[in-house]
Amino acid sequence: MHGYVDDKDALLKRLRRAEGQVRGIQRMIEEDTYCIDVLTQISAVTKALETVALTMLDDHLSHCVAEATREGGPVAEEKLREANAAIARLVRS
Amino acid sequence: MHGYVDDKDALLKRLRRAEGQVRGIQRMIEEDTYCIDVLTQISAVTKALETVALTMLDDHLSHCVAEATREGGPVAEEKLREANAAIARLVRS
Amino acid sequence: MHGYVDDKDALLKRLRRAEGQVRGIQRMIEEDTYCIDVLTQISAVTKALETVALTMLDDHLSHCVAEATREGGPVAEEKLREANAAIARLVRS
Amino acid sequence: MHGYVDDKDALLKRLRRAEGQVRGIQRMIEEDTYCIDVLTQISAVTKALETVALTMLDDHLSHCVAEATREGGPVAEEKLREANAAIARLVRS
Repeated sequence: MHGYVDDKDALLKRLRRAEGQVRGIQRMIEEDTYCIDVLTQISAVTKALETVALTMLDDHLSHCVAEATREGGPVAEEKLREANAAIARLVRS
Repeated sequence: MHGYVDDKDALLKRLRRAEGQVRGIQRMIEEDTYCIDVLTQISAVTKALETVALTMLDDHLSHCVAEATREGGPVAEEKLREANAAIARLVRS
Repeated sequence: MHGYVDDKDALLKRLRRAEGQVRGIQRMIEEDTYCIDVLTQISAVTKALETVALTMLDDHLSHCVAEATREGGPVAEEKLREANAAIARLVRS
Repeated sequence: MHGYVDDKDALLKRLRRAEGQVRGIQRMIEEDTYCIDVLTQISAVTKALETVALTMLDDHLSHCVAEATREGGPVAEEKLREANAAIARLVRS
């Protein structure tokens, strides 16, 4: 079980909505909706996905990384390395 | 007709893929996939949506804003104001 | 003369402040200030630099790109290409 | 002493360079340099500051947060809360 188990339903709910938003953007483009309105929707769904990612990262640091830190050793170091790489990808995406 | 008409098929194709990626992320969470792997997928779909947004912005500036600029007057100013607001949202999302 | 000529003083004022903020971050590190407080300052100066960039981009689109667009031809295309590349760098930095 | 003590010299060196880059951007504006060239420099210094922030965050998670986690209790929770808030600021700046 992973850190996000307690947030699972909320994460899935938010992702289903994001999926619907991406479908909605497709419809806007099919219906030749004005560019700025489409761009506004894309920024909204990007922000929603960032919120999902930040929630998952929070859970991961508080559970998986924290547990490994208490055990110590190479497992802890690898968990921290992975977490920092994930944070960098998020900051740069 | 809007600036993105020539890129419509490519944009729709990329958005369908992004929709599938968001669905895939839901499946990963339902199947208790390791947090870092889910985070990697979220960064990937966020980056894909940014690419769609940058393509649309490029088309918008090159067509809608350019046309309004040639006509001049308040329409052109409004188009530039809108475009700059959309760019700011993208930079900050 | 470039698009930002009217905003020159405000841009220079904001950049002098950003320079001071970066110097302040150095002092915080030299004085072993708590990491989170240093990170808060780094986010603040990054945001300030983004604001300077968005102002310059706004001026550039409204003047340099708009002028070239009215003239039309390859100069206009190059100006749009450059502007879109600058926007992409901003979105991805 | 904080987590970044081992990276102090490298961080200070990078920040001095960033300070010089911000001064350089001021000179570019004073000398009416072309907007796109100024924007390129702003993206470069923003990226450099992000790298400094990611290094500090890495050190903070590996030392300050890890130590608190081993001790457990409310101190650990507060450290994680702070770290997650700093990550969110970085992602959104």
